[in-house]
Amino acid sequence: MPRPVPDPDPLIRKHRTAGATLTVTANGTPLADQEVVVAQRRHKFLFGCIGFDFIPLANGETATDVGEAPAAGSRQVADLWFDLFNFATLPFYWGQFEPVRGRPDTERMLTTARWFADRGCVVKGHPLAWHTETAGWLTDLSNAEIAKAQVERIRRDTTDFAGVIDMWDVVNEVVIMPIFDKYGNGITRICREMGRIPMVRMVFDAAREANPRATLLLNDFDMSAAYECLIEGVLEAGIKIDVLGLQSHMHQGYWGEEKTLATIDRFARYGLPIHFTETTIVSGHIMPEEIVDLNDYQIPEWPTTPEGEARQADEVVRHYKTLLSHPAVEAMTYWGLSDGGWLGAPGGFVRADGTPKPSYDALRSLVKGEWWLPPTTMVTDADGRVRFDGFLGEYEITAGGRTVTFTLDEPGDAKVAVSL
Amino acid sequence: MPRPVPDPDPLIRKHRTAGATLTVTANGTPLADQEVVVAQRRHKFLFGCIGFDFIPLANGETATDVGEAPAAGSRQVADLWFDLFNFATLPFYWGQFEPVRGRPDTERMLTTARWFADRGCVVKGHPLAWHTETAGWLTDLSNAEIAKAQVERIRRDTTDFAGVIDMWDVVNEVVIMPIFDKYGNGITRICREMGRIPMVRMVFDAAREANPRATLLLNDFDMSAAYECLIEGVLEAGIKIDVLGLQSHMHQGYWGEEKTLATIDRFARYGLPIHFTETTIVSGHIMPEEIVDLNDYQIPEWPTTPEGEARQADEVVRHYKTLLSHPAVEAMTYWGLSDGGWLGAPGGFVRADGTPKPSYDALRSLVKGEWWLPPTTMVTDADGRVRFDGFLGEYEITAGGRTVTFTLDEPGDAKVAVSL
Repeated sequence: MPRPVPDPDPLIRKHRTAGATLTVTANGTPLADQEVVVAQRRHKFLFGCIGFDFIPLANGETATDVGEAPAAGSRQVADLWFDLFNFATLPFYWGQFEPVRGRPDTERMLTTARWFADRGCVVKGHPLAWHTETAGWLTDLSNAEIAKAQVERIRRDTTDFAGVIDMWDVVNEVVIMPIFDKYGNGITRICREMGRIPMVRMVFDAAREANPRATLLLNDFDMSAAYECLIEGVLEAGIKIDVLGLQSHMHQGYWGEEKTLATIDRFARYGLPIHFTETTIVSGHIMPEEIVDLNDYQIPEWPTTPEGEARQADEVVRHYKTLLSHPAVEAMTYWGLSDGGWLGAPGGFVRADGTPKPSYDALRSLVKGEWWLPPTTMVTDADGRVRFDGFLGEYEITAGGRTVTFTLDEPGDAKVAVSL
Repeated sequence: MPRPVPDPDPLIRKHRTAGATLTVTANGTPLADQEVVVAQRRHKFLFGCIGFDFIPLANGETATDVGEAPAAGSRQVADLWFDLFNFATLPFYWGQFEPVRGRPDTERMLTTARWFADRGCVVKGHPLAWHTETAGWLTDLSNAEIAKAQVERIRRDTTDFAGVIDMWDVVNEVVIMPIFDKYGNGITRICREMGRIPMVRMVFDAAREANPRATLLLNDFDMSAAYECLIEGVLEAGIKIDVLGLQSHMHQGYWGEEKTLATIDRFARYGLPIHFTETTIVSGHIMPEEIVDLNDYQIPEWPTTPEGEARQADEVVRHYKTLLSHPAVEAMTYWGLSDGGWLGAPGGFVRADGTPKPSYDALRSLVKGEWWLPPTTMVTDADGRVRFDGFLGEYEITAGGRTVTFTLDEPGDAKVAVSL
């Protein structure tokens, strides 16, 4: 009995915009009958993307222009990135972050995180515990030593990055963690011994204790009843989860509105905010549906195509609209702005040569167009008031050469007093 | 990294048999150099089957001979049943058991349960809570009233049947219970509201309180990580489960040894006994694998075939051997001795006309042949001792016209003193 798919636009207005009444004063008196300029500075909704490609750029390690370096990590593509996104996910895969025990890549990643934060982004670390891409040296340790190393790693990194990264995918893919059988690894070993819920408790306790202000996510790709059962067990055990992360790589085809809404509904009933943490929609051919583990799909080339790009643009718009139409969703992280990332898939909004696809333009026309208030001149009334409808987020108002910021935090009517 | 499939026979010997040394005395002195007859009376392993077909026979409601009544419920087929099985599952589907609120089918089912118990069987009730086949009148109630009715139903039935039925599938298919969407029903409604773990706690508490001696099962068809996650959550929440029930209807083909052992291993790691609660292996064509809900497969006729019967016999032997080779498995319930039960499938060991298939003979030659000690004459030594190897279970020894029973409870060496 799936519910019908509603028109998303009225719901987006309802859940994502405020009808603002600004009362502007200067020196304590209403600024009556004056021109003011109101402009949106940031979305409250987290339009996210991975920022992996820009680690060299942020650290000044490479040539920065297209033609001199791979386009994906260039300054030009970075400009495209910042024009669309306000939320960056950075890689903390243990095996890459600390390939040699005791030598974590902290400085370089901290520079990258600050680079994003300085440009107005929320930054998230991904992930603190996962069986895939974990440190190879764990397998030399006993289970007790692995658990200790895992806890210490979490304490160290959440402490080192606190204030710059205050959001973490604490643990990834716990549903299959203890039964993962592609290769031996230390994390599967301890999870199988201790059980999923004690594992989740251990890693969340470590992160919470080291950075009490952090937003902590449980993240999984398994959208079946298994993840529901895991979540219910974790919540019943009294473990505090701040956000439920839902992966949604769609290399095998766009989910469509009905499945997307049904999925959100199933996970929204726990009353926790939902982040779509890892979304991919390809602009080339679709991966055959018989592939179970996406990593098993290895092909020499997976090209973007004109028809694929048109389809992707349509699906991207529909998907973002669907997510914003549901009040439980607070963030969406796209899994790579440029083509050629994970699986070599044409999943980006930008081609390998750095040129934007139709999906880029389509999404930008929402995020910085239909859903955005550009600098707009308004005239205050006799009581110093202006009214406008705007998407939730951060705004600025300028009059007489002075600028003040304000935020619209909740949908519905908002009364805001600003003093210039 | 699935483990290799071992030869089951040595493992069956190891886990299922004892090397017994009987010391026989009469009037306090060893019965030296005497002929005695030792015979097995019952298996410890629960070789189970549903007993649904025999409710009319047990209640004297029908003609009882083949030719006068459907063969499946006839006295002749009942004789075949009791020659193979020692464990009966009886139907307590709420919608059938109490179609009109307040008028449960208690007397008739109690007569049936006693009929099986009087013939030496352990009897189990199935199930006390399930969203499918539940009482239709629940939908007229509020959620609080449904929960109250569910608890009262469990207390009533576990109390009414205590001493005859002391084993219950307390709750069935909780993994999908709150998201079941084929049709509206009261149990899905309350499970969705309260969550899976509180639902399990509620029904187990009710059953445990009403019959503290009962063996209580959690039962599911979902063999994926979802059931693992549910179990881990339930155990972590401190709910006492006595036995994990694994369904294994194989209308879509025999699982094979590797999958069966891997499944047992995954669920055995919780340290609870495992019952295979619902097994079907067909002797006709295999249901296409694209069918997700087996109930969706509706065909006018599903015949048993000679080739299918040969395959079934082979698979049945392999499957029972695999289960007995793993020490965690304590019971196996076959889902119907006769053809034409659920889905009209040729899943029985007996054809619709009441004649046994090769699978019946093959299984009987294990249960009452290779794995069984028929009345066997032995001669005691000078100290009154005889030695034999036997499958765990109940035995009798007869000498000089007197008979005494004894049991072999644990695998390995067993010293037993019997006084004739």
